[in-house]
Amino acid sequence: MYRASRKARFFAPQLRTLTSASQWISARRAHTSIEAPLLSQGSKTKAYSDRHGILGAVAIFATISLGLTLSNKRHVDAEQPVAVTSPEQRLIRLAEVRKHNGKAETYWVYRGDRVYDITDWVPNHPGGEVILRAVGGNIDPYWNIFSIHQKQDVYDILEQYFIGKIDPQDLADGRLPSEAIEDPFSTDPDRHESLIVRSSRPCNAETPTTALGTYITPNEVFYVRNHLWVPEIINPETHTLKVELMDGDEVEYTMDELRKKFNPLTITATLQCSGNRRAHMTRGSRQTNGLQWEMGAISNAEWTGVRLRDILADAGVHVDDIPEGVKHAQFMGAEAYGASIPIEKAIDRRGDTIIAYEMNGAPLPRDHGFPLRVVVPGHVAARSVKWLNKIILSDEESTSQWQRRDYKCFGPNEGKNPNWDAAASIQEMPVQSAITSLKHVGADKLNDSKLARVYGLEEESIVVEGYAFAGGGRRIVRVDISPDDGRSWQQAEILPQDEKGSKAWSWKQWRLAFPVRDVNQYFLVKAVDESYNTQPDSFDAHYNFRGNLTSGWHRVSATGSDLVVEVK
Amino acid sequence: MYRASRKARFFAPQLRTLTSASQWISARRAHTSIEAPLLSQGSKTKAYSDRHGILGAVAIFATISLGLTLSNKRHVDAEQPVAVTSPEQRLIRLAEVRKHNGKAETYWVYRGDRVYDITDWVPNHPGGEVILRAVGGNIDPYWNIFSIHQKQDVYDILEQYFIGKIDPQDLADGRLPSEAIEDPFSTDPDRHESLIVRSSRPCNAETPTTALGTYITPNEVFYVRNHLWVPEIINPETHTLKVELMDGDEVEYTMDELRKKFNPLTITATLQCSGNRRAHMTRGSRQTNGLQWEMGAISNAEWTGVRLRDILADAGVHVDDIPEGVKHAQFMGAEAYGASIPIEKAIDRRGDTIIAYEMNGAPLPRDHGFPLRVVVPGHVAARSVKWLNKIILSDEESTSQWQRRDYKCFGPNEGKNPNWDAAASIQEMPVQSAITSLKHVGADKLNDSKLARVYGLEEESIVVEGYAFAGGGRRIVRVDISPDDGRSWQQAEILPQDEKGSKAWSWKQWRLAFPVRDVNQYFLVKAVDESYNTQPDSFDAHYNFRGNLTSGWHRVSATGSDLVVEVK
Repeated sequence: MYRASRKARFFAPQLRTLTSASQWISARRAHTSIEAPLLSQGSKTKAYSDRHGILGAVAIFATISLGLTLSNKRHVDAEQPVAVTSPEQRLIRLAEVRKHNGKAETYWVYRGDRVYDITDWVPNHPGGEVILRAVGGNIDPYWNIFSIHQKQDVYDILEQYFIGKIDPQDLADGRLPSEAIEDPFSTDPDRHESLIVRSSRPCNAETPTTALGTYITPNEVFYVRNHLWVPEIINPETHTLKVELMDGDEVEYTMDELRKKFNPLTITATLQCSGNRRAHMTRGSRQTNGLQWEMGAISNAEWTGVRLRDILADAGVHVDDIPEGVKHAQFMGAEAYGASIPIEKAIDRRGDTIIAYEMNGAPLPRDHGFPLRVVVPGHVAARSVKWLNKIILSDEESTSQWQRRDYKCFGPNEGKNPNWDAAASIQEMPVQSAITSLKHVGADKLNDSKLARVYGLEEESIVVEGYAFAGGGRRIVRVDISPDDGRSWQQAEILPQDEKGSKAWSWKQWRLAFPVRDVNQYFLVKAVDESYNTQPDSFDAHYNFRGNLTSGWHRVSATGSDLVVEVK
Repeated sequence: MYRASRKARFFAPQLRTLTSASQWISARRAHTSIEAPLLSQGSKTKAYSDRHGILGAVAIFATISLGLTLSNKRHVDAEQPVAVTSPEQRLIRLAEVRKHNGKAETYWVYRGDRVYDITDWVPNHPGGEVILRAVGGNIDPYWNIFSIHQKQDVYDILEQYFIGKIDPQDLADGRLPSEAIEDPFSTDPDRHESLIVRSSRPCNAETPTTALGTYITPNEVFYVRNHLWVPEIINPETHTLKVELMDGDEVEYTMDELRKKFNPLTITATLQCSGNRRAHMTRGSRQTNGLQWEMGAISNAEWTGVRLRDILADAGVHVDDIPEGVKHAQFMGAEAYGASIPIEKAIDRRGDTIIAYEMNGAPLPRDHGFPLRVVVPGHVAARSVKWLNKIILSDEESTSQWQRRDYKCFGPNEGKNPNWDAAASIQEMPVQSAITSLKHVGADKLNDSKLARVYGLEEESIVVEGYAFAGGGRRIVRVDISPDDGRSWQQAEILPQDEKGSKAWSWKQWRLAFPVRDVNQYFLVKAVDESYNTQPDSFDAHYNFRGNLTSGWHRVSATGSDLVVEVK
């Protein structure tokens, strides 16, 4: 049975590790030092239990990813009791709800006085299995913190699972007992005011458009994409990185060992969220689920750290061949996030996957993984796990929601209950580009504006600027700009950059000036990478309900856009 | 000056090696064993002279590539004598024409009694520098053999360079002296009658459409893309492969040594011409220069040979790091063809670049490189040099026309004199797909057709079949088919294949059945690779005047196409 097998695969170990709110709050308070006790799983290997035990100990909260997947309610499982009355008439005791907690076969929650059996929803929860922290109790306090749930879409999903109401006997003074839970976001760092915040808890914020024109993004305006809270400050003196090998053996490195034992490597690498430009897909096609990022969920930095390849070699892995039985390197973050990459990328001499401790010459900011993160250049940023504490070599992908569900693409026709397993996890990204400014230089500014001199402008012009990027280290070889909605094209100047790394891991800035008389309302941009891949013309055909990897041509009105800057 | 510098770079060494028709005919007769005497180049290194010397000795004919680049005549160079009369009035002695041969600074030819100064055209000749074999004499005998020149486009190009007429004093009995030249195509092999021939001299022929539905293409119907003639039968007992290192040292291997000294490797790899589907671009956008291939300039085979990496290691190259100063591995074929790949691909452990001696378990057919060819999987087939006799490690790309000119892409606006050097040579290819058959199963055939049973058809249907492929070893993860010109899409079944090699080097066949009532005139196909690159919707925006790397959605009429097969 699909649900049961998925549950066993994804959730069972964590479930059985921490079962009450108080337990997970305790765990959270101590999460840098404790490991929760593990239940023996019998059929599970030591390695498997270990990794999930740690995930369990760290995974301490109902959480949220930023796309919400709608699900049609499935048929009630045959083994479940069948309600003899309509849900509106059925009364359920609070003690009964509490039984349907993370230890049970079916999962209930209540909101207000309404009770829901969300068993069938759990595998579809975009935020992953940590939703199970809330089952058996009241969902409201979690949603007060993870406020992204407070919208009609989410209420509608929940309502599909309605099974009855709390029995009035359990109401004290007509009210349900309150359940206080700690706000894990209370210790999030302060952020730069120019970031464009798309959600605050968890923090998801775009790089301001003006900073998208700069090759190296300053740390404080590098876009923030958090799936959960930022862990409380991790002590770099005591923080360690564990590497679990296929035989279950574990090798552990302190930060100091990482710095001293291995040669550092600095790479220039662009990170991009798979949701970058999702708002363009929504406007260009139809509704997508997830944060409506414009074109600022992308930034570029110099990252310094240690090659993952070198660490694995030191841990005893034969990195020149694919290690026997290993297919993926899984990464686990201190806040409960997990993801993986193919082992080929992890060990590739020219793959430049690093365990980074510096960003643009400074220690990693807390929002970007202090003290340690993975940087997987050329791959979707979701694989560059922050607050890294463990690497696991495995024959399977990370079992996290973010690997198995959230970061995938589907066909334009595929609905909101696709065959998740059939789609490839996003790793390398396709070629991409965006316009980030339209600088208007009036005829009266030709003599006194610096821009007019830089571009050698001789008449009223618009200078179009933007970025282009391709995954997989594929160099951008051409950027085509149309000043007239596609009727004609010209090649932009691609600005040369001093790039560090084995391949072209970072975006390119480009620019091109057009006399105003050649402009016919809409500018378009499309880029070409060194494999001569290019971008699709429109949005409908690469539409996917999650709005991932939007890459249709960026189309901007020459006059009606807020990207227009009047040059003085 | 552009012309002079290009000439020095591309043509000088060959030019000075063989200067008369009789010399090159002698050279050709002996070309498997001789090397032409080299002129000392002074400033050239030994390695540089050597490689061009050999190219010169082998490059023995005015040749032709299959796209013809039109050029506007440039201004006459200031240092050239200025004609005092109009060209129609000017009389030129035959001896004067003969002076403007490959040794001279300027290049003349005559056709009929009309004389042309083609100096400015030479760098633009799509067939490469071997055009210089014809200069100083009559172009007609060459064009009689390379019959692709016999069309108005080419006459028009030549006419731009008209400078005068042969002086009647040099006509014997009113006729020009005849110049007999040997037909190098006379020893080309016989070919399978089902191949769809696009040009016979050189032979360029598509795989028949029916064979495009088979995973492994049989050798005899594997598409043929020859730039020149097929070399006379090469004796595998005496054939050797030379490897020239950066210091000029040369290591030589007999066929027997290659087989015995190295572990063989078999890979399944698709080769595709950059011109595949050019006819689709022409029909979908506008005129392109080159052979009008449909979708059959692609085939798939199992290739067995020796890893280039292993050969280089044996020759003393440190293949785990990029060898000092080396950027490219150049390949030279016995017929004069040359191309190169980045050194990273040559030494990549998982790059699977092999020097192949078998194709589908048999010795290479003559049309496919007997006895030795390169197979560069994931790269455009133009880099998989046939009749291989030399590999050169170099800090620059192959200087051949096919590397520096012919296999590049440009913007849709870029005219027929683009900045050749600014464009990237095609190496890895973009994602691609095509429909190869529409099998109509009538309602009366549902019970007795095997196809209806295989697909479980329950009503009148059309089964759409085709291939999908991506360069760079990027796996095809999804194929979307529209039965109604893009209004809706469905995912095709991708047929599983037993593929050999480190990455996904070979195409995938796919299929999908549609009830006829869901079909609305046009089928479309587009594929997605594992980097989630996809194909452009239309042709105009990735149009390039050479029609290379056409990848717009393939659009086929459900009723009006010759791909429709009535199932019996």
